[in-house]
Amino acid sequence: MNCARCNKIAVIDVGYTKESLCKNCFLGLFEDRVKKNIRVNQLLHPKDKTVVAVSGGKDSAVALYILHKLHKKAPKSELVALTIDQGIKEYGNQTLSAAKKLCNHLEVEHHIFSFKKEFGVSLDELVEKTKKLKKPAPVCSYCGVLRRRLLNDKARELGATKIAIGHNMDDEIQVSLMNYIRGDISRIARMGPVVGIVKDTGFVSRIKPLRRCPEDEVLLYAKLKDIVFEQGRCPYSGNAFRKTIREAIDLIDRKHPGSRFQILNSTDQLIPMIRSSLEVDTLKKCVVCGEITSGELCRLCQIKKELGLK
Amino acid sequence: MNCARCNKIAVIDVGYTKESLCKNCFLGLFEDRVKKNIRVNQLLHPKDKTVVAVSGGKDSAVALYILHKLHKKAPKSELVALTIDQGIKEYGNQTLSAAKKLCNHLEVEHHIFSFKKEFGVSLDELVEKTKKLKKPAPVCSYCGVLRRRLLNDKARELGATKIAIGHNMDDEIQVSLMNYIRGDISRIARMGPVVGIVKDTGFVSRIKPLRRCPEDEVLLYAKLKDIVFEQGRCPYSGNAFRKTIREAIDLIDRKHPGSRFQILNSTDQLIPMIRSSLEVDTLKKCVVCGEITSGELCRLCQIKKELGLK
Repeated sequence: MNCARCNKIAVIDVGYTKESLCKNCFLGLFEDRVKKNIRVNQLLHPKDKTVVAVSGGKDSAVALYILHKLHKKAPKSELVALTIDQGIKEYGNQTLSAAKKLCNHLEVEHHIFSFKKEFGVSLDELVEKTKKLKKPAPVCSYCGVLRRRLLNDKARELGATKIAIGHNMDDEIQVSLMNYIRGDISRIARMGPVVGIVKDTGFVSRIKPLRRCPEDEVLLYAKLKDIVFEQGRCPYSGNAFRKTIREAIDLIDRKHPGSRFQILNSTDQLIPMIRSSLEVDTLKKCVVCGEITSGELCRLCQIKKELGLK
Repeated sequence: MNCARCNKIAVIDVGYTKESLCKNCFLGLFEDRVKKNIRVNQLLHPKDKTVVAVSGGKDSAVALYILHKLHKKAPKSELVALTIDQGIKEYGNQTLSAAKKLCNHLEVEHHIFSFKKEFGVSLDELVEKTKKLKKPAPVCSYCGVLRRRLLNDKARELGATKIAIGHNMDDEIQVSLMNYIRGDISRIARMGPVVGIVKDTGFVSRIKPLRRCPEDEVLLYAKLKDIVFEQGRCPYSGNAFRKTIREAIDLIDRKHPGSRFQILNSTDQLIPMIRSSLEVDTLKKCVVCGEITSGELCRLCQIKKELGLK
């Protein structure tokens, strides 16, 4: 097959546009989509100091690569990379090593912080502790709380105005459909291209430059650009419901190409509607750590208490 | 397996409650759910004159059967059945015959109106006419517009205060997810247990007593109660997108029982949020027929013009 735009040899069949594209036309389409998302949703400001959360996986690697390219054209902006070493045997070392190589190659300042040093336990050790609980939550939910807090704390310490994360379109629509199907509508209000903007709360806004990029295209972009990343899968990732939702979306999108984009569009229509309908949570300060929370004790301090972390 | 409630022989395994139930306990559960839906959503008033739209299929047959049972306990209420004979060879005769038998058996006054007499064409003839159009819409969309208008006109002529339709839970969540996945959020606002309540517009409210009943349970209820219905499938029903959505919901509910109820709950949470967010359509009167519409010409008059109907 030849490229529908320039007739060179195609590298991808884009199902939703029914076009085959060559390497250069695909890379152009991909980057244009990221730039449009940044422009339309005002993800970046020319003077932003952006911390890119780099895990070592393909998504955050591509996010860093493209933001680094854009940063070179915005002389007043700053860009640093931040990796959180959760402490997962083998997998953790491989992803950390990939993240280091990429930052080194791009010559981007790279900060690494570990669960072990900050919370006194690696994720492997935390998992052992949760096994003693009567009703442990899924591992991803503990890891997520610790990771998000550490990311926010360190970004703030580094003087960042934005945190960029690698969420791709499939991540976003899986979460949207999961919330929809399990009746968790209020969580859809917390989604979107920019999250965590609550004035004067000390939260650094998290932006999602790849939010309109399908996962398979992120992977192809990384491969075509020879970007260093680790392809392994976290040994703790085993969300059965998410897996089912992914299968259901695949089934629908295979038969009706373009459905994934339409789910994203629906999500984007719903977010402001749900936000304006929900009572605004009275934000309080956590009685232990002082961070903003909706209850007395924030989720991180609850976990610390439950598992006896420092 | 024995009934989880009374230990008699079970007739059904209810996946979402992990209970097996005997005939009587199942029938009780089913009827209680219909009654609760009617009570909570105020579907009926003791003095209502209700027209039940009876197609001859299982859903409307069960709706009529249960409403007839309730009507006997509300001496000031009135109940009549109404069947629209669309004019579909074989299938139409079979369903019409089933509807007649059921109304006869229940001794419910039965009104029959036909597309042929009211619009000058049977659905079979209309389908032939649409084939000459450049871009014909799906048959179901023509049929739906004609059927809903005729139902409303005739219910109004009969002095009805309510129209009851047989929509079951699967119908409702399929439509919800279809709207969600194809980015048609505003259509979710038109869903719910009561639809078409627009004050002083001449629309008779349509109520859905079976809206919280899974399709397989409606079928089982009809069989256990020996209710007359026709099991055939309309020869024009071939919505490929709906079929895919049904498959996706089946996949999810099989792996995570109860998901169907949660989709219904999400829909119910969203309806008021979307309604209050949408600009209220300025309602106009159709320049041809005078019925309420959002444009100049209502959809029925558009179809009549397009296909040259009377």
